[in-house]
Amino acid sequence: MSTRSLADDGAALVTAGLASLQRAHPDLVTVSEHPAYVMRAGAGPAKVALVSGGGSGHEPLHAGFVGMGMLDAAVPGALFASPTAVDIRTAIQAAHRDRGALLIVKNYTGDVLNFSIAAELAAEDGIATETVLVDDDLATDLKRIDGTRAAETDDHRPGRRGTAAVIAVEKICGAAAEEGGDLAEVAALGRAVVRSSGTMALAFRACTNPVDGRPAFELGEDDIEFGVGIHGERGVEVRRRAPAGELVVALTAPIQDELNLSRGDRVIAIVNGLGAMTGLELALAHDELHGYLDTRGITIERALVGNYVTSLDMRGLSITLVRATAQFVALWDAPVRTPALTW
Amino acid sequence: MSTRSLADDGAALVTAGLASLQRAHPDLVTVSEHPAYVMRAGAGPAKVALVSGGGSGHEPLHAGFVGMGMLDAAVPGALFASPTAVDIRTAIQAAHRDRGALLIVKNYTGDVLNFSIAAELAAEDGIATETVLVDDDLATDLKRIDGTRAAETDDHRPGRRGTAAVIAVEKICGAAAEEGGDLAEVAALGRAVVRSSGTMALAFRACTNPVDGRPAFELGEDDIEFGVGIHGERGVEVRRRAPAGELVVALTAPIQDELNLSRGDRVIAIVNGLGAMTGLELALAHDELHGYLDTRGITIERALVGNYVTSLDMRGLSITLVRATAQFVALWDAPVRTPALTW
Repeated sequence: MSTRSLADDGAALVTAGLASLQRAHPDLVTVSEHPAYVMRAGAGPAKVALVSGGGSGHEPLHAGFVGMGMLDAAVPGALFASPTAVDIRTAIQAAHRDRGALLIVKNYTGDVLNFSIAAELAAEDGIATETVLVDDDLATDLKRIDGTRAAETDDHRPGRRGTAAVIAVEKICGAAAEEGGDLAEVAALGRAVVRSSGTMALAFRACTNPVDGRPAFELGEDDIEFGVGIHGERGVEVRRRAPAGELVVALTAPIQDELNLSRGDRVIAIVNGLGAMTGLELALAHDELHGYLDTRGITIERALVGNYVTSLDMRGLSITLVRATAQFVALWDAPVRTPALTW
Repeated sequence: MSTRSLADDGAALVTAGLASLQRAHPDLVTVSEHPAYVMRAGAGPAKVALVSGGGSGHEPLHAGFVGMGMLDAAVPGALFASPTAVDIRTAIQAAHRDRGALLIVKNYTGDVLNFSIAAELAAEDGIATETVLVDDDLATDLKRIDGTRAAETDDHRPGRRGTAAVIAVEKICGAAAEEGGDLAEVAALGRAVVRSSGTMALAFRACTNPVDGRPAFELGEDDIEFGVGIHGERGVEVRRRAPAGELVVALTAPIQDELNLSRGDRVIAIVNGLGAMTGLELALAHDELHGYLDTRGITIERALVGNYVTSLDMRGLSITLVRATAQFVALWDAPVRTPALTW
């Protein structure tokens, strides 16, 4: 037991997370503790139901995005572990309003497996589902300085991880569902957002285990872990300390390449803190990102800056760009009312 | 220079904070960089102008609370340093709409001095002001285990520090001003909120200097700094690691005593992360707070859980209770639309 944390027990943390959300936002969400899921409060309109979920430890994701204009249900797993298929099925049943359910799944083996079984179970319940797989993290595709790739191509590799672009998928699909889009339309839109998105992250300090206080990995004083994920895994490579502008360019250039962004293009940017970054540092990253894209004639049409997809108390940040169509921006701007995002 | 931070330069951080806020929220705020202040966007209604400010490093405080239903202007100083009287005066001039200005000031020597000079300068400009001094932090009044007090009484002691209760003052006064309250009424209300509020904080790890990465103080592995402020100062005493419930009670009991809370009383609770706490840990603190107050017949009428008044990347949290009248709750519930708080 270490003093670096308030918690003695990971399961108690997850349960407390649900209880706190219910008590702080009774107007927005209704929580079921067993099975564990968070529902939009009140009888929602007849619309496509949006259901997401995944391991805990990434708060406010996903439960913080349940409400009008985003998710109808979120299913939290244990810390960094997928929710069960049975819990996901129950949440789908509870959220469903006769127009089918869209499952928004970050690309991790456990989540993909459990949401896939849940989709089969939902089919047995007579509920149509579509799945949008979010795999925006470019780090595993990135060429190392020595020319090798972190994840060499083979038929069994899990592919890119899903990280902060899930916010854009949930917001944009949520608005489309609210406006009456049908299941196929909302699913196609979600897949279009994923294809238009890329994310890169770095960390100055690993997350610590919330129970024993141990860091997920050790980093030297002048080292930066580049290409980190959100589950305490190491990044693609260790880089040396550099000015903020250089670090932001190192994160942004691969996304720019991947999305083929060039002069005249527009993006939605998410500058996301991973847990222990200060608001001022996220602002600095936003400012450097603006400067870099501006000189290339690329406009940040909308920016979301803050802690949205965290990795416990990791000291680091991610940058996500979504190539912005007029439709994406209009749906991004549509009203939303959730614990973590309201406008 | 350490790798623990994105920044090389404190002043650049503050400037970036302003630029980022402007770019992310052009519909809500308008930023002036020189002199540095943040204004509510658009020509506001003819109402009492609410102006606050203070050292940077506590984001989203104060600039994140500028907008409909809260502040009309916020004046950021350098990191942990008061803004200048001249900048405050300029912000008062800009925010003023012929019904006077309410200055909301956290109790620190520099802020008290500079806001006081600014009030005199505003009087020269023909602008009536009232000041609400926020001094909610009970730590300095707390008896140590050995019976001594951290701040022994003398005529020159600075008194209690102002911390997270400033959120309640800004929200409740903001709503009252929006509803047309006059300067004297809104000021009296703000003072009533301060008298009804108490805060206590603890830390598992000090904040680090955002430029050189050095911690403000060192703590042993099993130590908790109890009664910390938000400027990297040490707390009242070092305590040993204890279960979450005990720590929450240790924070809450002095507030309960100070506010004379007993069975049947109602409170607004702010469970505030100081920078590097996880969402789940804040939820756990909220849950323990609920349990403790519930057994004493005290109801949490409204709860705000998240990072609102931070101390850079300090790993710690504060608990604020505000004895809730029906008027306070109604004004708390009134619509608000700012970068950091919207409902």
